[in-house]
Amino acid sequence: MKIRFNREQLLNAINIASKAVSSKTTMPILECFLITAFGSEVRITANDAELGIETVIHTSDEEGKRGACSIMEPGRTALEARLFSDIIRKITAESDSDIVLEQNGSVVIITCNSSEYRIQERDPDQFPALPFIREDRYIALSQFTLREVIRQTLFSVAANDSNKMMTGELFEVKNTILKAVSLDGHRISIRNTELRDDYGTLQAIIPGKTLNEISKILDGEAESEVQIFFDENHVMFRFDDTTVVSRLIDGEYFRIDSMLSSDYDTKVTVNKRAFLDNIERSIVLLRETDRKPLVLTITDGCMNLKMNTVVGRLNSDLDIHKIGKDIMIGLNPKFLLDTLRVIDDEDVCLYMTNAKAPCFIRDDENKYIYLILPINFNPAAYDV
Amino acid sequence: MKIRFNREQLLNAINIASKAVSSKTTMPILECFLITAFGSEVRITANDAELGIETVIHTSDEEGKRGACSIMEPGRTALEARLFSDIIRKITAESDSDIVLEQNGSVVIITCNSSEYRIQERDPDQFPALPFIREDRYIALSQFTLREVIRQTLFSVAANDSNKMMTGELFEVKNTILKAVSLDGHRISIRNTELRDDYGTLQAIIPGKTLNEISKILDGEAESEVQIFFDENHVMFRFDDTTVVSRLIDGEYFRIDSMLSSDYDTKVTVNKRAFLDNIERSIVLLRETDRKPLVLTITDGCMNLKMNTVVGRLNSDLDIHKIGKDIMIGLNPKFLLDTLRVIDDEDVCLYMTNAKAPCFIRDDENKYIYLILPINFNPAAYDV
Repeated sequence: MKIRFNREQLLNAINIASKAVSSKTTMPILECFLITAFGSEVRITANDAELGIETVIHTSDEEGKRGACSIMEPGRTALEARLFSDIIRKITAESDSDIVLEQNGSVVIITCNSSEYRIQERDPDQFPALPFIREDRYIALSQFTLREVIRQTLFSVAANDSNKMMTGELFEVKNTILKAVSLDGHRISIRNTELRDDYGTLQAIIPGKTLNEISKILDGEAESEVQIFFDENHVMFRFDDTTVVSRLIDGEYFRIDSMLSSDYDTKVTVNKRAFLDNIERSIVLLRETDRKPLVLTITDGCMNLKMNTVVGRLNSDLDIHKIGKDIMIGLNPKFLLDTLRVIDDEDVCLYMTNAKAPCFIRDDENKYIYLILPINFNPAAYDV
Repeated sequence: MKIRFNREQLLNAINIASKAVSSKTTMPILECFLITAFGSEVRITANDAELGIETVIHTSDEEGKRGACSIMEPGRTALEARLFSDIIRKITAESDSDIVLEQNGSVVIITCNSSEYRIQERDPDQFPALPFIREDRYIALSQFTLREVIRQTLFSVAANDSNKMMTGELFEVKNTILKAVSLDGHRISIRNTELRDDYGTLQAIIPGKTLNEISKILDGEAESEVQIFFDENHVMFRFDDTTVVSRLIDGEYFRIDSMLSSDYDTKVTVNKRAFLDNIERSIVLLRETDRKPLVLTITDGCMNLKMNTVVGRLNSDLDIHKIGKDIMIGLNPKFLLDTLRVIDDEDVCLYMTNAKAPCFIRDDENKYIYLILPINFNPAAYDV
């Protein structure tokens, strides 16, 4: 194998593929990139057994155009990913110089100008192939939209996997609507997105980790498209020159419809920025292990916020618009922050029934529904 | 006590004083700011027993001018520094609003617009006073120069204190020259700085930690001055509205003059940027515990660099100008990097005698001398 790379494009491919390199593993081959050079393509592949990423660097096929790479001799090798990335990153000085990768027995020689690295390859035959995914059931949407959907729901995926299902996110397609749902036992996030075509009925529970890595490598342009293929046990994302394959979480997702209600006794409209600022001020009084509520006392035109902890107290007032009954309710301020930060509207609406029932934050167009369960508190301790 | 603060200026004072707040201590009072309001000044003080910082916020004395603070009622209090900093930082939304601090028994009330915090004060009488420093022996230089001197020498102070003296830096004044020296047993850094006046003979061993914190709060302007007062057991830095007091390290510093030599058999002149880039490329082959040398083979017009480690090999050539004998020498690449990064010259000169003797990097004007001890290696393993 002998390949000449344009440094910038090689670095870009490495950065994408590295998202699927295993960091803690007993299988050293999972810490590697598989580099395959055949025909007019160099493929860089990483696979941590849950998540696999393959990205392609094309050789130049137009005459006179300087290609991203050229293959002088086809072949394949496996290289320790962190070391290879470090080396390519460090070869920065003469950034317009090409980088040449050449196999010599089991040693790979990397040269750029007058510097030459020699590193040991790993056996490429040990590298686990990415699973084959059927391509008949899929949806297409813009990279920007997918990244937004992930950002707006991923925060309420459960962090630890005592309940495996909660570490994933439901992607449910019904005709022209993609519904993304995540929940962690204390809150639910739902985003509905209009698709351009009718894709029938599809469903998958995608690991939160997969969505997190995907959102880092989507370029976020509204014009760039991503296709999502749904197979029985896997999901595949394809965009630009990159393919991401992930295992799905097995089983049936929670039935959330019964938890949602559009009834309410109190509706509050509040400026999102001012609400956020006030909640952030309350967080400084929390110490790591605290699960103290932020107590909202809602009356006509005014929301009072109170936080009492061992280190101090906060008392703050905020102008609001209220419809319905007065109410006093205790909520986890970090959950409120997470939710408000991903809503782009200037004003948000809170719907509540009583201090024991969930608080809903939702819009009129049914684009988003966020449910937060309240925290019990002793009202006497928060008397105005 | 009741004080009204301009938020930006209070935040600035907090950021400065916080550099001397103790993070790990069995004395809770050392985690506090002492806030003292008397006359036309509010003083914010922190003291971690090694290092003390006091910074002043002035009340407005000119009519019509909005002051940085105003004292409605003098007094003093001690507040947990991290909590107080967090609170003032979070009160950002209405940044042109003032912040009012008011004592109410042992509770301090912090208000800004419609938000009110109540936090418990600590006993200000327990706060340790800063030591009194005599002001008769001192030097003056620009903040920019002091920051540069620290940056150019601090890296070779020893990190762990198995030898206390090595954790400090020698500041030695002889008439119009300030000489700063640091060493860690493997290397020595020396910077000579011309002062504007003759200050006689002064000497102090200043803890590296003190210099590190000082360099973070110096504003770095060439026009702003800093005065350094030398007392028997303490040193005091005074600049802008801030005073920093630090303990000195007791004892006599190493006699370094005998270690320095201006004899050499090989002199190499090399472009600093190209040399740096090549050394950085070698670092990627090191794993944390490695103490492998970078082996330089110097011949007419060419410096060859080689690094052999378990993960791979680097072989790189560099154009140089050489006077004297050919030489092969092994040096710690991290030490070379540290040194080259703080030299502002375009070309640097290396002076060497043999593979067992120190390598010197110094300029012709005697502004800097850096000494690096070589590392033993087996020349056969690095044969070209």
